[in-house]
Amino acid sequence: MLAKHGANITGLDEHAEPAAGRFAMRIAFALPVEQQDVLASALHIWSKKEEGEIHLHAADRVPRVAILCSREDHCLADLLWRFDAGELRGRVVGVFATQPGHEAICSAYDVPLRHMPVGDGGMPVHEKELLEGLDGVDLVILARYMRILSEDFLERVNAPVINIHHSFLPAFIGANPYEEAHERGVKLIGATAHYAWPELDAGPIIEQDVVRVGHRQDPGQLRLMGRDVERVVLARAVKAHLEDRVVVWGNRTVVFS
Amino acid sequence: MLAKHGANITGLDEHAEPAAGRFAMRIAFALPVEQQDVLASALHIWSKKEEGEIHLHAADRVPRVAILCSREDHCLADLLWRFDAGELRGRVVGVFATQPGHEAICSAYDVPLRHMPVGDGGMPVHEKELLEGLDGVDLVILARYMRILSEDFLERVNAPVINIHHSFLPAFIGANPYEEAHERGVKLIGATAHYAWPELDAGPIIEQDVVRVGHRQDPGQLRLMGRDVERVVLARAVKAHLEDRVVVWGNRTVVFS
Amino acid sequence: MLAKHGANITGLDEHAEPAAGRFAMRIAFALPVEQQDVLASALHIWSKKEEGEIHLHAADRVPRVAILCSREDHCLADLLWRFDAGELRGRVVGVFATQPGHEAICSAYDVPLRHMPVGDGGMPVHEKELLEGLDGVDLVILARYMRILSEDFLERVNAPVINIHHSFLPAFIGANPYEEAHERGVKLIGATAHYAWPELDAGPIIEQDVVRVGHRQDPGQLRLMGRDVERVVLARAVKAHLEDRVVVWGNRTVVFS
Amino acid sequence: MLAKHGANITGLDEHAEPAAGRFAMRIAFALPVEQQDVLASALHIWSKKEEGEIHLHAADRVPRVAILCSREDHCLADLLWRFDAGELRGRVVGVFATQPGHEAICSAYDVPLRHMPVGDGGMPVHEKELLEGLDGVDLVILARYMRILSEDFLERVNAPVINIHHSFLPAFIGANPYEEAHERGVKLIGATAHYAWPELDAGPIIEQDVVRVGHRQDPGQLRLMGRDVERVVLARAVKAHLEDRVVVWGNRTVVFS
Repeated sequence: MLAKHGANITGLDEHAEPAAGRFAMRIAFALPVEQQDVLASALHIWSKKEEGEIHLHAADRVPRVAILCSREDHCLADLLWRFDAGELRGRVVGVFATQPGHEAICSAYDVPLRHMPVGDGGMPVHEKELLEGLDGVDLVILARYMRILSEDFLERVNAPVINIHHSFLPAFIGANPYEEAHERGVKLIGATAHYAWPELDAGPIIEQDVVRVGHRQDPGQLRLMGRDVERVVLARAVKAHLEDRVVVWGNRTVVFS
Repeated sequence: MLAKHGANITGLDEHAEPAAGRFAMRIAFALPVEQQDVLASALHIWSKKEEGEIHLHAADRVPRVAILCSREDHCLADLLWRFDAGELRGRVVGVFATQPGHEAICSAYDVPLRHMPVGDGGMPVHEKELLEGLDGVDLVILARYMRILSEDFLERVNAPVINIHHSFLPAFIGANPYEEAHERGVKLIGATAHYAWPELDAGPIIEQDVVRVGHRQDPGQLRLMGRDVERVVLARAVKAHLEDRVVVWGNRTVVFS
Repeated sequence: MLAKHGANITGLDEHAEPAAGRFAMRIAFALPVEQQDVLASALHIWSKKEEGEIHLHAADRVPRVAILCSREDHCLADLLWRFDAGELRGRVVGVFATQPGHEAICSAYDVPLRHMPVGDGGMPVHEKELLEGLDGVDLVILARYMRILSEDFLERVNAPVINIHHSFLPAFIGANPYEEAHERGVKLIGATAHYAWPELDAGPIIEQDVVRVGHRQDPGQLRLMGRDVERVVLARAVKAHLEDRVVVWGNRTVVFS
Repeated sequence: MLAKHGANITGLDEHAEPAAGRFAMRIAFALPVEQQDVLASALHIWSKKEEGEIHLHAADRVPRVAILCSREDHCLADLLWRFDAGELRGRVVGVFATQPGHEAICSAYDVPLRHMPVGDGGMPVHEKELLEGLDGVDLVILARYMRILSEDFLERVNAPVINIHHSFLPAFIGANPYEEAHERGVKLIGATAHYAWPELDAGPIIEQDVVRVGHRQDPGQLRLMGRDVERVVLARAVKAHLEDRVVVWGNRTVVFS
């Protein structure tokens, strides 16, 4: 069908799990502008007939990205650098911070910062403000945001939400993974980037990595070393998502290379 | 005190956690034979006075090691090779297998094999047989033994027991970690070597490592890839233990290099 | 064409380098026996017309593998275990050793061992004997063979030859990589599995890996730690080759997953 | 001697290479201010008598650090973040850039930037300007500086110089490691932080790391992936140096943990 419409295939990858009756294929192709609508229609008709799903992404469209953070800014500074350097495809249309202090880095990259503390109204009011701010956004990145977003929020936000959790999930779910890792005496600490789901730290994992630690590291040092893992894990996951290389199957992901 | 008794210090490492009031030091030294008893007495008197603990290990004594396994023999074959090659200090005095089939590899390394199935008497009878077989052993290695040993057994065995668990603990405790890892869609799988404690997969961790996996690996392939991690993680843990480099603090370990 | 001949595609991966005018595709498919010759002919006609290359491999054919080694047997023992366990597809038809001592492990896995020292006739005579022994073999594995095979031998052996080199190539070409690594003070040591080419340690790399080391390791300890890397790197390369996942482009490889 | 002067030892590590007649020890200790000069004198007298070397570093002194860079700023931005966050001990007293464009990031962290292009006078004039600018600095970091500094400069700069090289040394010395890595078809790429010596990419290695790559990555993608390794490798090396954990022995380093 692609050939018939004059598309030139530039990349193709696929993954099948016959036992589960699942099949995913990612095709990158170049197509003259005047053919795009026709092909899109043809593909949608085909997908209905075959009971498959088709997602079309225009590679030249620049996604609008929002970053939510709290006090810690290692992921924020790293992401801003990568978007600015063109490493990550997209434009950061806003940084929303519950804590003060990110003015300098945001203005260095010319990105609008909105200080949005969780006030007397608590999370319900905060989430309402957020939803307004996130209107029209294509991707929400929780860059060490440190608040639990409600099921209601996640349903209404209308964009995928990627979170970085500072442990190798499913180990150490919750708020203090480095303390718990130290107490358990693990020899590696990790980080996990995943799509946020209503259940805490439970969404589909996009990327994980670890770093070796030992008895000499106290929780504070684990936190320092963990930052380096958090940064690259989140960046790799965001990159894969923005390059349309991630397919979600239940709570697992297919990440094409 | 070491100098006074004519010891020549050849290695020294230490670790302090002042907040917890903990301090550990490992000193390797050479000492004329005739001085050894005198020094040992002096050290024990000193340790009582200072309320510390002293463990003296003669580096030229060959530890007696037992390996327990079930059907899978990748760790068994690997350990036998390493003991035979002199990589691991010690002599394997017996392999105890609940399943048939390890004759060839054991006889290749000239190691006595005892087939010890779990029979009608269940684990109580099996554990009793094991305890008799393990009498006088310095270290018990559970090389994918796949049975849960009772608290009573662990108290009576009179030797440290090192287990290899086929996951990155504390994630995926229990019998089917690779299936669970596949279901959760993790991007790394791991293995953990730890001292066996009555609580399942809960003892002090000696060594861990991971390997990167992706959506293409089904549980069977995770199991294959996991074997390579299990082997080296167990071997490194056994090596550290047999070289007296492991200090246990509660459920954590200090592993000197 | 595959569909027309009744083939059911079970796996497909491809890689293109348009700038270099290169394209490789690996297709796994099931086909009724009676269709196989017809399809093979059709594919070969097609490949001539298109000036491409086609390699057909029957997945149910058991490759005949020879292992060449010297004194060290860590790779040999590991490979024998993996072939025996079915992890590696193939049958080891012979182990050829320049040094004595591998009887026990070979007989444990019921594999014929031929002691083939390099005698007074030097390498020319040795290579001649080897060529006779390797007749009809599909793959030759140099499992720490430690001799340099001549260009003439490599041309005449009529089977791919996979070598494990005990360094992270192109660093430390030659016979003493661990000594050189220690002298240079590197913080990681590695191993490289590659197809053997007449130029020393220069053939297409199939797999590499490294392990972290530090100032405490002397060359002897680097050698010990290196073994663990050599084993898995060689095993992964052999596995990829025997599953027909490696495509050679000049001195680079495409390794499909 | 430390005890006699009232010092409280808070950390101790040592490394011996008896065969080479080498021994290094790092002792961290707390000492009342009024005792410091007395101890320093005593230690220096002792070191002369024993023909050893003693380096005393006051942990509360803030080292003055200069960063030299060219066009690429991934290491620069990362280092500035880490100094600002207190992860690296020291104060960046100046950034010297041969290329334009780092104003925003430097002013975000309130660090003076000096644009210092290599002009008609070539490197001799440039080095002279640099030497003036670097006067009184405790550490010079080459954060992808991309110029070869002369032997004369390195002798006169009067501060240790740490360079990040974008390959796993000793592989791929020189200016285009990612192109060479791609051509050689390696399966891992790396980065090396080392003290700069007159001979190119030849000084003592402080830290190295690698990341796995495959046939899909072209040199441009290797460069992208390499950045992540360069950043952390350089940061870890600078951290070790600034915490006085590095001892240089010939062209090797002892890096205490």
